[in-house]
Amino acid sequence: MVEPVRVNRRKFLLASGGVAAAATSAQFVPATLLAQDKPLPPFASFKSPEAMIVHSANTMETDREVMGAPPITPLNELFVRNNLPAPSEEIVADPDIWSVEFEGVAEPGSMTLGEMKKLGVESVAAVLQCSGNGRAFFDHETSGTQWAVGAAGNVFWTGVPLRRILTAMGGTLQQSGFVTATGGEELPPGIDPLTIMVERSVPVEALENALLAYEMNGEPLKVAHGGPVRFVVPGYFGVNNVKYVRKVALTENESGSKIQQSGYRLRAVGDSGGPSQPSMYKMVVKSWVTEPMRDVSTGQVLVQGVAMGGDSPVSSVEVSVDGGATWNAANLSGPNLGRFAWRPFSYLVNLEAGTHLIASRARNDAGEEQPELFEPNHRGYGHNGWRDHAIELTVS
Amino acid sequence: MVEPVRVNRRKFLLASGGVAAAATSAQFVPATLLAQDKPLPPFASFKSPEAMIVHSANTMETDREVMGAPPITPLNELFVRNNLPAPSEEIVADPDIWSVEFEGVAEPGSMTLGEMKKLGVESVAAVLQCSGNGRAFFDHETSGTQWAVGAAGNVFWTGVPLRRILTAMGGTLQQSGFVTATGGEELPPGIDPLTIMVERSVPVEALENALLAYEMNGEPLKVAHGGPVRFVVPGYFGVNNVKYVRKVALTENESGSKIQQSGYRLRAVGDSGGPSQPSMYKMVVKSWVTEPMRDVSTGQVLVQGVAMGGDSPVSSVEVSVDGGATWNAANLSGPNLGRFAWRPFSYLVNLEAGTHLIASRARNDAGEEQPELFEPNHRGYGHNGWRDHAIELTVS
Repeated sequence: MVEPVRVNRRKFLLASGGVAAAATSAQFVPATLLAQDKPLPPFASFKSPEAMIVHSANTMETDREVMGAPPITPLNELFVRNNLPAPSEEIVADPDIWSVEFEGVAEPGSMTLGEMKKLGVESVAAVLQCSGNGRAFFDHETSGTQWAVGAAGNVFWTGVPLRRILTAMGGTLQQSGFVTATGGEELPPGIDPLTIMVERSVPVEALENALLAYEMNGEPLKVAHGGPVRFVVPGYFGVNNVKYVRKVALTENESGSKIQQSGYRLRAVGDSGGPSQPSMYKMVVKSWVTEPMRDVSTGQVLVQGVAMGGDSPVSSVEVSVDGGATWNAANLSGPNLGRFAWRPFSYLVNLEAGTHLIASRARNDAGEEQPELFEPNHRGYGHNGWRDHAIELTVS
Repeated sequence: MVEPVRVNRRKFLLASGGVAAAATSAQFVPATLLAQDKPLPPFASFKSPEAMIVHSANTMETDREVMGAPPITPLNELFVRNNLPAPSEEIVADPDIWSVEFEGVAEPGSMTLGEMKKLGVESVAAVLQCSGNGRAFFDHETSGTQWAVGAAGNVFWTGVPLRRILTAMGGTLQQSGFVTATGGEELPPGIDPLTIMVERSVPVEALENALLAYEMNGEPLKVAHGGPVRFVVPGYFGVNNVKYVRKVALTENESGSKIQQSGYRLRAVGDSGGPSQPSMYKMVVKSWVTEPMRDVSTGQVLVQGVAMGGDSPVSSVEVSVDGGATWNAANLSGPNLGRFAWRPFSYLVNLEAGTHLIASRARNDAGEEQPELFEPNHRGYGHNGWRDHAIELTVS
């Protein structure tokens, strides 16, 4: 039988329980132990069960073993991460009647999706990635879903550019520092809404590329991914892409919501979150190997993976089969879908018998390169260190 | 109630029967009359019933009303056209063991998909289009499926470049004029195989871009689309992309199969097919409007559609809302996915009350432009005339 390769998911194991003993004795454990046998929740029932690791009813990860190196991620394999329970499927029955309120413009008001579309539409390919993707690779204890690499995908968004809507509403007001988007989730009564609502602010420069998106990969946006209308900021971490968006405001300050003020902040381990710390806005250069994920025979091996540049295009990817001692240029084997998209890479190599640590390292046009190591941070956000993302392959 | 727009599908109606009387009295008839209430066959059960017009158990078209203008076509909306009944689903259980025979090379032999992948993989976006797409728009009687615009889609193929395989097999033999691919369908006994087998030859220059494809849109290739392995020639009409490919040969001459010798030949109405006539190889510049497909109110209207350049990139698309009297530049609203892909376009226009004939006209980098009219040919292949592809919209 072919053995699965070993990846560093110690923290994942500790969090999911049951095999903690194994995890304490070895850093690398079989990845197949980790797929939990939870059923998919109804709102994500269109996902392929073989492709998804179901962490909870609101968090599902693409299994690295089936991720492959696709130009775009099939919808039935794309991760799901909801901060609150998803609304009813009824809200996507007629997307064109979904109404969004716009504030902080010369002529504030509401527009339905049907009305917005008449201002013009665009499509863009972009990585969708949770801030906590890679959390499982940190050594320190972190709360939150123990994502490995599968809280990320590359999708086509189609929507109405925010700048067209703002123009139609008479333009933005001068003092705006942020674009603040409010989600349409139903909030439980008796709780201060600010402590629970999904309302995120991004720097006003983000409106350059922001979309009110209604299609993903050419299909109407599903509830699991924020349909009927999602606020999408290409190049920014997932949390900034507010689902079921019901309000977009140009605001002087950041939202007072907890998810903005103290959540999604990069901070030292042990520190509390607060507004002075960096917020999880722009994504950074990153790559990871996705194949082979099973041990192989000696001879020619095709190493594959995906690489993203953050908000600058991927310029090159290197692969190491000796744990970073030497590096070789990989082939960018998939199409260039623009600066916000990921790009599949592949590298052909002859491997001799033994154990090989296979790593990838991406660079972008801005000259940024994946680091070998990534400093711990309290919530385990933004890990892009190549060493922890490497896989250990046995060739025999 | 909003009325569907009228499109020229007279021949379609005559062929599908039942409403022929209406068709004789008016060139334009409601498109919704045409969707047939046949169930999807099992091998295409993953298709969205709302998206597909089921012509037969082997031919299903994407409904123009749901096609939209996506960067890529979702798999559950992509047309299906099989020349023979599809093989069992068992053949896609383990794609890597599918074996293909290679001939006409220095060292002929077989390779499994698993072995081929070790030579390197690539992804490319390309239009997949049946030779008969647009057949319903011809005025003369044609046999064959009465496709309107929906026997076309834009997909990502991932596969092993044929040129890599040929190199691994010692290179091609000098006298080869064609690449001949043989499908893996089971042939009924007692019939001369040449009269029924799917074996197509393309000019040897096609090997430059040909792939042995095993994924479509990042998913393993389904039986309905030729999985586990399909011979794909980007830029060429669908029939040349041989499904379940079991043999690829560099040959001096074209295949002796009927589908090559007399089928898929451009010929005058009434003529028999033969090898001296042009074969349906490269696709040509073409576009069509897909929205709005329902009558609209006066005011701003977003016209959308898709445009392809054949084997040269789309350089521009124009839209006319007055039946071709005047033309205006459309916006290329989707990403540029390369020369073989289609490109969504959109055009914002204020429409006054009345009837408008909405047409689109694409140009490619080679300077080719869609003609207004397209000469009839016996089998109704290759229609790219813009006038017949126009839609009649009532604005009130």
